[in-house]
Amino acid sequence: MSTINISTLEEEVLEKIRQIADAIINKIIAYQRDFHRFAETGWGEIRTASLIARHLVEMGYELEIGREVIDPESRMGLPSRDDLEKQYHRAIKQGADPEFSGQLRDGFTGIVTQLVNGKGPIIGLRFDMDALGLQEARERKHRPYREGYASVNDGVMHACGHDGHAAAGMGIAEILMQMKDQVRGTVRFIFQPAEEGVRGAKAMVKAGILDDLDYLVGHHVLSSMKCGEIASGMSGYAATSKFDVVIRGKPAHAGGNPQSGNNALLAAANAVLNLYAISRHSNGATRLNVGKLNAGTARNVICPLAVLEIETRGANNELNQYMYKKAENIIKNSVRMYNCEYRIKFMGEAPTADSDPALMELVETCGREIGNLTCRRIHRAGGSEDFTYMMKRVQENDGLAVNIGIGAALQSSDQDNGQELNIPLAAHTSNFDFDEKAIHTAMILVTSLIFKIMDRERK
Amino acid sequence: MSTINISTLEEEVLEKIRQIADAIINKIIAYQRDFHRFAETGWGEIRTASLIARHLVEMGYELEIGREVIDPESRMGLPSRDDLEKQYHRAIKQGADPEFSGQLRDGFTGIVTQLVNGKGPIIGLRFDMDALGLQEARERKHRPYREGYASVNDGVMHACGHDGHAAAGMGIAEILMQMKDQVRGTVRFIFQPAEEGVRGAKAMVKAGILDDLDYLVGHHVLSSMKCGEIASGMSGYAATSKFDVVIRGKPAHAGGNPQSGNNALLAAANAVLNLYAISRHSNGATRLNVGKLNAGTARNVICPLAVLEIETRGANNELNQYMYKKAENIIKNSVRMYNCEYRIKFMGEAPTADSDPALMELVETCGREIGNLTCRRIHRAGGSEDFTYMMKRVQENDGLAVNIGIGAALQSSDQDNGQELNIPLAAHTSNFDFDEKAIHTAMILVTSLIFKIMDRERK
Amino acid sequence: MSTINISTLEEEVLEKIRQIADAIINKIIAYQRDFHRFAETGWGEIRTASLIARHLVEMGYELEIGREVIDPESRMGLPSRDDLEKQYHRAIKQGADPEFSGQLRDGFTGIVTQLVNGKGPIIGLRFDMDALGLQEARERKHRPYREGYASVNDGVMHACGHDGHAAAGMGIAEILMQMKDQVRGTVRFIFQPAEEGVRGAKAMVKAGILDDLDYLVGHHVLSSMKCGEIASGMSGYAATSKFDVVIRGKPAHAGGNPQSGNNALLAAANAVLNLYAISRHSNGATRLNVGKLNAGTARNVICPLAVLEIETRGANNELNQYMYKKAENIIKNSVRMYNCEYRIKFMGEAPTADSDPALMELVETCGREIGNLTCRRIHRAGGSEDFTYMMKRVQENDGLAVNIGIGAALQSSDQDNGQELNIPLAAHTSNFDFDEKAIHTAMILVTSLIFKIMDRERK
Amino acid sequence: MSTINISTLEEEVLEKIRQIADAIINKIIAYQRDFHRFAETGWGEIRTASLIARHLVEMGYELEIGREVIDPESRMGLPSRDDLEKQYHRAIKQGADPEFSGQLRDGFTGIVTQLVNGKGPIIGLRFDMDALGLQEARERKHRPYREGYASVNDGVMHACGHDGHAAAGMGIAEILMQMKDQVRGTVRFIFQPAEEGVRGAKAMVKAGILDDLDYLVGHHVLSSMKCGEIASGMSGYAATSKFDVVIRGKPAHAGGNPQSGNNALLAAANAVLNLYAISRHSNGATRLNVGKLNAGTARNVICPLAVLEIETRGANNELNQYMYKKAENIIKNSVRMYNCEYRIKFMGEAPTADSDPALMELVETCGREIGNLTCRRIHRAGGSEDFTYMMKRVQENDGLAVNIGIGAALQSSDQDNGQELNIPLAAHTSNFDFDEKAIHTAMILVTSLIFKIMDRERK
Repeated sequence: MSTINISTLEEEVLEKIRQIADAIINKIIAYQRDFHRFAETGWGEIRTASLIARHLVEMGYELEIGREVIDPESRMGLPSRDDLEKQYHRAIKQGADPEFSGQLRDGFTGIVTQLVNGKGPIIGLRFDMDALGLQEARERKHRPYREGYASVNDGVMHACGHDGHAAAGMGIAEILMQMKDQVRGTVRFIFQPAEEGVRGAKAMVKAGILDDLDYLVGHHVLSSMKCGEIASGMSGYAATSKFDVVIRGKPAHAGGNPQSGNNALLAAANAVLNLYAISRHSNGATRLNVGKLNAGTARNVICPLAVLEIETRGANNELNQYMYKKAENIIKNSVRMYNCEYRIKFMGEAPTADSDPALMELVETCGREIGNLTCRRIHRAGGSEDFTYMMKRVQENDGLAVNIGIGAALQSSDQDNGQELNIPLAAHTSNFDFDEKAIHTAMILVTSLIFKIMDRERK
Repeated sequence: MSTINISTLEEEVLEKIRQIADAIINKIIAYQRDFHRFAETGWGEIRTASLIARHLVEMGYELEIGREVIDPESRMGLPSRDDLEKQYHRAIKQGADPEFSGQLRDGFTGIVTQLVNGKGPIIGLRFDMDALGLQEARERKHRPYREGYASVNDGVMHACGHDGHAAAGMGIAEILMQMKDQVRGTVRFIFQPAEEGVRGAKAMVKAGILDDLDYLVGHHVLSSMKCGEIASGMSGYAATSKFDVVIRGKPAHAGGNPQSGNNALLAAANAVLNLYAISRHSNGATRLNVGKLNAGTARNVICPLAVLEIETRGANNELNQYMYKKAENIIKNSVRMYNCEYRIKFMGEAPTADSDPALMELVETCGREIGNLTCRRIHRAGGSEDFTYMMKRVQENDGLAVNIGIGAALQSSDQDNGQELNIPLAAHTSNFDFDEKAIHTAMILVTSLIFKIMDRERK
Repeated sequence: MSTINISTLEEEVLEKIRQIADAIINKIIAYQRDFHRFAETGWGEIRTASLIARHLVEMGYELEIGREVIDPESRMGLPSRDDLEKQYHRAIKQGADPEFSGQLRDGFTGIVTQLVNGKGPIIGLRFDMDALGLQEARERKHRPYREGYASVNDGVMHACGHDGHAAAGMGIAEILMQMKDQVRGTVRFIFQPAEEGVRGAKAMVKAGILDDLDYLVGHHVLSSMKCGEIASGMSGYAATSKFDVVIRGKPAHAGGNPQSGNNALLAAANAVLNLYAISRHSNGATRLNVGKLNAGTARNVICPLAVLEIETRGANNELNQYMYKKAENIIKNSVRMYNCEYRIKFMGEAPTADSDPALMELVETCGREIGNLTCRRIHRAGGSEDFTYMMKRVQENDGLAVNIGIGAALQSSDQDNGQELNIPLAAHTSNFDFDEKAIHTAMILVTSLIFKIMDRERK
Repeated sequence: MSTINISTLEEEVLEKIRQIADAIINKIIAYQRDFHRFAETGWGEIRTASLIARHLVEMGYELEIGREVIDPESRMGLPSRDDLEKQYHRAIKQGADPEFSGQLRDGFTGIVTQLVNGKGPIIGLRFDMDALGLQEARERKHRPYREGYASVNDGVMHACGHDGHAAAGMGIAEILMQMKDQVRGTVRFIFQPAEEGVRGAKAMVKAGILDDLDYLVGHHVLSSMKCGEIASGMSGYAATSKFDVVIRGKPAHAGGNPQSGNNALLAAANAVLNLYAISRHSNGATRLNVGKLNAGTARNVICPLAVLEIETRGANNELNQYMYKKAENIIKNSVRMYNCEYRIKFMGEAPTADSDPALMELVETCGREIGNLTCRRIHRAGGSEDFTYMMKRVQENDGLAVNIGIGAALQSSDQDNGQELNIPLAAHTSNFDFDEKAIHTAMILVTSLIFKIMDRERK
């Protein structure tokens, strides 16, 4: 009996999902473009989060917000107090909702809400909201500029599609609220700050909001995959550590008595060379980059201060730890070599995590049922993504997690070379853009997956 | 006959000099404190120079100013167009004389004037005017702060006494104008911009204003020498080259395809290590410092751009050239090692030059005649000073040059340890200060030296 | 009809192979132990090759030897003329057959022979013969020492089983000669010098002796795999380049005039650091090692000469080329940085090559038919092997090639952890040893594979 | 009264010295050439010392020898036990006197003897005996080769004139023994091993043989100064430390598991770069050289062992200590950076020391009295010389010390450019040679200085 009914039910459900999605998609895209226009970097997504909060509350959701869902100590790569303050005032000026902005202020830009109806699985949905510190292209061939929603915030840009993710989350929340009666279980919405730099997920994990989840679903638009294609589960995110190193030496006049200085720049330069020389590891890929080095006060002064921004990566957590431990030892001894002192400041961290095949199969089933979606499996996502923190937590509790890729290439030609996809690399450029149809796809696919999961649990 | 008369004349002359100096010293010190309060860095000394110009013109001097005395191409370490513009508007706002400010604008802050009376030697006097990029101490024990003339310009400070030199120049111009009838020959006043960083002298030399000098006299207050002492001639300034290196690489995602980047930061770090490793030279002291290194755009991007601020020094010009040539070769090959490109930008340069003993003897004679001045010879000045550019030009034309040190220590105790003096090191600190009596001494000593030189020529 | 007959034939054939192998195995093992005792390094295998030649000639084979099968210009890592001469005299003294030694002398230690009977495929068999520059363990638990056949040549040891390969080749030649009537086609025996350091294969390939092969079969004893197991085809050998760098500088007294030296040691040290810092490549594994660095003449002399021994590796030829090109650029510019000169001398080189699956299947079939052999596939061999040069040549001509692994672990316990095998790493140690039963297995397996191939071709 | 008598005495004395010197000079030069032919490096001067011993004993001197005058623990840069043994057997084979060779064996090649007559000052004379590890030129224009006394010992050569010093010591001993009655006081002869590498003096100082000296006199032939000229006292030897660093890492297969190695070569290379980058010191000249670096076992093995040969120098002891301490810190931390271990082994050490002006004046007086000698003062000797260890000990006890330079240039032309002499640099080359007349000069000058000192003490 069950399978036939369910199957019947699903067709109806799917049809309903489609109807609502079609009805609200223009509003949702308007939200996405608005977020794009007022792009906000991690821990400063006050305007974005406040508008999401407003939308949720208006639909009848009750919110947990700010300190309720963010562990203060676990936030990484937090801007300075001053910068956070400036972000707040900018957000207010740009139309942040004052009702919520106070709670979101000071680096607490997370929102959690849920829809509960009867017994059933607890399913978490995660959406990131932050933009990148990147200057958006101001040229006609760049659609956001041409159509007037390029970022008004200098040096800040949504170049990774999180504006679309956040908007999709709002859409899914709207669809589900309208279909609340069909829901059997709990759907928890997690709007996460500061994914860029893998800084924000940990603080929400540590706040405990994922501890009771049976399922966790995330998604990411993929500008490198055709619109109409989906990747049933992204895996192989590199484990990564992001950290700053502050080296303190002693200044001295470089002409008069150079020997009395402790040269922090030389210590840093020596560290850099040796960091890149860390041995390859036979167990898999590793990476290290010193992305920035700023050192010195004046040409004629032995440099007393150097700051390095570093990241390590590994194909798995052990490989990343291997890199980090080696890096730490090199930094320590390079600094001592020049009688300097140092401090390491963690700025971001993400483990590896793989999408669960069982859940990927459900995604693929949904894809087929929705129709006109081509399903692919992706072996290697490349880059890093702190959703892995959340996936790992759920998987540790025997839950299942998946991160779905939504094809979003603007032009369908010459983007798919049939090879393994190397997704996030197309992003993070000043003319990044994606097809907004992907938001529609994400809304339908994720919502239908929720019903599919609930259906599966009932059986 | 001559010697008796001269001797007689000199006593009168000296007495006259003293009288005028005593009469104007308070006004001159007021100028110095005013310059100190509105401290201006090199090529931006618009307010300072304009007030000097006003003073000179009011006394009856005719000026050459700006482009008339500065060769545009030979200016080194010029601030950006934007910065120069900001300096101009700041100066105007802080009371620069509008009559002269237009000519001084855009990095042309030099003034030359002269007093001519009959036939005789052409004697140049040089005064520098610029402050340092240093935040002045804001504490009661620091007199300029306590007495209300600490710099109002953030991060700019007269920490090397050039405010005093400029004021002394104004005083000497006033004394000589009053004694014009006794002058036999030409006294040329050279107010030079941008001595700090050894950036300004070359542009005035190249403008030709020193080409006909028979004598050249400069002075420097010495906070490390007792007030009442003078150094008859400072020598042994290191030859130095100041230059920036811009290294351009190619960015790439550090996780996704690091191999496609050309790492400018790594090229820079490698250059730094090898630069410090340039071999010592058996012919004398050499120095190299990489004072600043700024590189990189983001933690996860292979660095595409690095900027180094470097200086070399040598006990003589050959040694400095040795260092510079080696440095250039290291930079070139380190950059090529990483398939990057580079550009070297000269920011300052000064040769070595020694005070002429014949002129030093005259200084010593003046010192004795003035009375209550103790005369010392200083063998090694340390540091660099671009007055050497001017000295060298005059000496090449068989003229004589001297740079006099004027003891200016605020406290007479424990500053003189009887060892070789290492002068400039006491300067360039945030609580630098000196005894203003030194300005009075400088005025009398330099003026009497002028008469002594003219007297000598007559014989 | 054919399949049944063949199958019948094969049983007889296999039985015959077994009988002969059993009959000669003691003699063959005696050869292996004799080669082990008089271990000879690459290009110096005069005694070994001469005894193989004697054995082949006595059985009725006609030889091509020395310059006939070795292209002089393509030999890599050749010892000095002096060393080769010493090797020759040592070999003669240790019982090399004088009839052949003259032709093998001077770095021409290769032998080729063949057995032809009727029309059929041309099948090449390759056997390497050289030992390593390693001091053999002299301790009772090391069987060769205990049983009196440890190497008598100081610092030379068969630690990779090539003694066993060469002996197996002699055994196979003997079996096939006795079964000549059953052969249909050509079996060519290739005894190759200087596999260690991947130095010898290229010279035989360039001599043209593989150009007409339809099949190529090699084998390697695997001390890391149980006796009784075989790997049907080893693949994934790293592409590698081995090269020496000679850096020439200029000496100078380090105290008296260090600046006049060009420091080759410093150039080398700088190259080393930067070589290890070559960026990882996202397309796969890469390696670089500076295994040796010898530099300098005396403590107080700026070093005029440095020699580095370097190798690069890549998971494929492109990756190895990436590493080599980067390395070359680093060396060039590091040397120029110190006004030195350099020369790169190729010492070895091997591409990647994979065993052909079709041939691997035949091996597996043989393994099953022989019985009591467990067949495994090995994905990754690790290390490098210059048999790949030969495989590549045959494969380029549309031939098939395979390199078979023969399990040879002395103790069957705890060596197989069920994970991917990492074969060659167990070798190259001073107490390397293997179970001689593997020679017997190799003789039977390779011979039966030859008949299997000929059988296949007939169908 | 005294002055007249003394003066009279001195003429006689001088005449007597001349007569004896003339009589024995050919024998003495024969000794020098014999020592030259059988050149022996430091701690292996068994043949040389034994022949000196024989000569002294035959004249009636009593010897202290070997362990009696050498502190075993203070010997630096001692060859290996094996090498010392080889030296012994070589020496015996080349005609070492067996009576003394046993005591000189094992690195105890020092001899002390003295001549005592009545009360008077205790005057020490020091002669070094060792050759350099250098291959002597084999060309006709090189006199030792042309005249058949070039070194027969491969790679060992008297290229610093110590053969002449030792021979002169034998001559002075002979003259004084013949004039014993005129002696008033004690003349102690010190034949020191291992001056090259500044290794031997400390062990004789620590043995206490200089503790009671009132005067200490050494001499050195100067190939860079004309024959007939003398330098009354050499000063300004650099303080120096010579040391080896052994770095131990952990080997690993560079292809298979590079990460498990600890790379001693990389640690060494990094140390080298940073060692040369030690900051210049404003108090005076410093030097550092890594003269040799030998590292690694095989191309494909992460290097487990590196040995560096290093020296530091300073214009004075403090500057040398500054360099050494910095070097030690760099080595320590560079080694730790790569998880390696290290050991520093002292191979030589010498302080700075200056000749006493009072004694230099006596030398000059002697020079004038002897006639046809031109006296110069030398300010800077350059290089290092471990006689300074002995000078320092005597000076610490309020004694006076001098090291006399004896002009010995073969060709009188173009060697004296009137500039400051840079003596030891002309030595240490494969075609070093000097005019043997200098030995005659040394004998007469040093002997007459002894009488002059005794005369002075009497007054």
